[in-house]
Amino acid sequence: MRIGLDIGGTKIDAVLLRDDLTIASRVRVPTGKGPRAVVASAERAVHDVVASTGGSVASVVASIGAGIPGMVDAERGRVRHAVNLDVTDLALADELSARVGVPVHVENDVKAASLGAYHLLSLTGSAALLNLGTGVAAGIVLDGRLWRGPGGGAGEVGHIPIEPGGAICGCGQRGCIETLASGSAVARLWPSHAEHPAVELFDAADAGDERARTVRRTVAQAVASGIRVLALTVDVETVVLAGGLSHLGDRLRRSVTEVLEDWGDESAFLASLSLPSRVRMLPPELAAAAVGAALVGIPDATEGRQVRAAPVGDDATRASVGAPVDAPR
Amino acid sequence: MRIGLDIGGTKIDAVLLRDDLTIASRVRVPTGKGPRAVVASAERAVHDVVASTGGSVASVVASIGAGIPGMVDAERGRVRHAVNLDVTDLALADELSARVGVPVHVENDVKAASLGAYHLLSLTGSAALLNLGTGVAAGIVLDGRLWRGPGGGAGEVGHIPIEPGGAICGCGQRGCIETLASGSAVARLWPSHAEHPAVELFDAADAGDERARTVRRTVAQAVASGIRVLALTVDVETVVLAGGLSHLGDRLRRSVTEVLEDWGDESAFLASLSLPSRVRMLPPELAAAAVGAALVGIPDATEGRQVRAAPVGDDATRASVGAPVDAPR
Repeated sequence: MRIGLDIGGTKIDAVLLRDDLTIASRVRVPTGKGPRAVVASAERAVHDVVASTGGSVASVVASIGAGIPGMVDAERGRVRHAVNLDVTDLALADELSARVGVPVHVENDVKAASLGAYHLLSLTGSAALLNLGTGVAAGIVLDGRLWRGPGGGAGEVGHIPIEPGGAICGCGQRGCIETLASGSAVARLWPSHAEHPAVELFDAADAGDERARTVRRTVAQAVASGIRVLALTVDVETVVLAGGLSHLGDRLRRSVTEVLEDWGDESAFLASLSLPSRVRMLPPELAAAAVGAALVGIPDATEGRQVRAAPVGDDATRASVGAPVDAPR
Repeated sequence: MRIGLDIGGTKIDAVLLRDDLTIASRVRVPTGKGPRAVVASAERAVHDVVASTGGSVASVVASIGAGIPGMVDAERGRVRHAVNLDVTDLALADELSARVGVPVHVENDVKAASLGAYHLLSLTGSAALLNLGTGVAAGIVLDGRLWRGPGGGAGEVGHIPIEPGGAICGCGQRGCIETLASGSAVARLWPSHAEHPAVELFDAADAGDERARTVRRTVAQAVASGIRVLALTVDVETVVLAGGLSHLGDRLRRSVTEVLEDWGDESAFLASLSLPSRVRMLPPELAAAAVGAALVGIPDATEGRQVRAAPVGDDATRASVGAPVDAPR
């Protein structure tokens, strides 16, 4: 079996994946801050997710994959600039592997999630996961394989400018997609004390607030721009919306497809690409990044197979119930 | 041996490619207009390029590839909307194959050129050819293989808008890269009776004409935008500039890399991508589209091999001199 870890700013989502790519168990543990604590909490997640099997990590697990935010050198298993984790530079693969006695692969969390979503949603052909979180980035899966680009720079669509003279982006450019389509963009464009400012924004827009409608349209146009860029470069058949804003669910999808349909009304060329039908939402309960992390670095593990999700156990820091075993389809 | 045809609006560029991917001969014949005449001139090109061998087409040639502008259904060997050729719909593979007795593959000319450039320039890893002609489109080669996208829509970067409220594009959208980085864009932005308006524009800019400098900068920024999009989506290591505007050669490359360097001064993130060093020009004498056309549909023909160019014969409508045979490197 294989373990996949999705190391987020507040928690680590861990899955134990059988060789037929069904999920045997899933746990969540809190993430510590700083390199030492990150490695320690990853180690705890590994032990916890294996606990339900009754075996030891080394006897049960063939490999571990970790998805983590930041700039990942997949070849060396290092991560740099994982700001939310207080990590500047961490040899995660070596350090975790030394503690648990199993080979460890490391991948950027959005790239891992794209591979996970591809299998969890039973996608075929080519697809991208467009993550609308604090930042905006895409993971691209071409014919079933994660496309990283030579330096891991593939999918950095959040830093394509779409608004000349727009807001300054964290990258130094102005008017990037990220300045309009991210959680931070919503926080800037719709200042709010609500727990979920995006939900408040959409509620206000639905209630007829003109300013809210304008902001919602702006955000939806930026998301649609990201989808158009992905379609007109790699021509992915599916774009899965993920990240914080995707928790809006079908409300976000409708706003975005409305923009794409309006664009198609003005351009027969765009209309011929059927962009609205390519958009899907990532259901928030799916362990996309964790499952994808378990699969990275294993080129042929996923050929012709599907992954099925297991629910998270009630006590999310303990081993969860196993999912029913499904034969690979 | 294999034949590659680059079917352009005025001429067909034909190469005869040895199995080691060296060019045995190269000819050019005028292109007829309309479906019947296009097929007839393609047939003539096939016979002419084989003439130097003394053998018959069927005895010498294993397959033929044709690169042609327009929307290509590669699987069915059909082309639609090849406007410059007065072709609305043509079953080119079937019709040409029936006349010459050899299997025919068809591919969009820009996509074919990207594959040809990849080999003629001895590129490695991943690359795009950004064609700056009447329109703007890219061909994308990932790890040595042409990436078409499921519907052949990959590389349509010319139709990514970069100027909100800009000029109307042929696609119906406004401010697309194509409205600023194409030969038609130069003709609109710098009206001129010169044979090469782009050369006149660059000459005027070099001579200090302020309006010319502004137009040149606008064009260079649009080309640079296309390069940035390709880098931030597929992360290609090389972008080869081709098409009419590329005849400006190093003058165009310098204008474009200047823009990319200025952007890098404002964005450490962009600077870290080393975009200026990724830009190359396609030397105009290379038969990129014809060589690439000979290679499409032959997945393993190009593994670890290089192609060498042959000069075009003096009488471009007759079989040209053969190039020296080079062992595959």
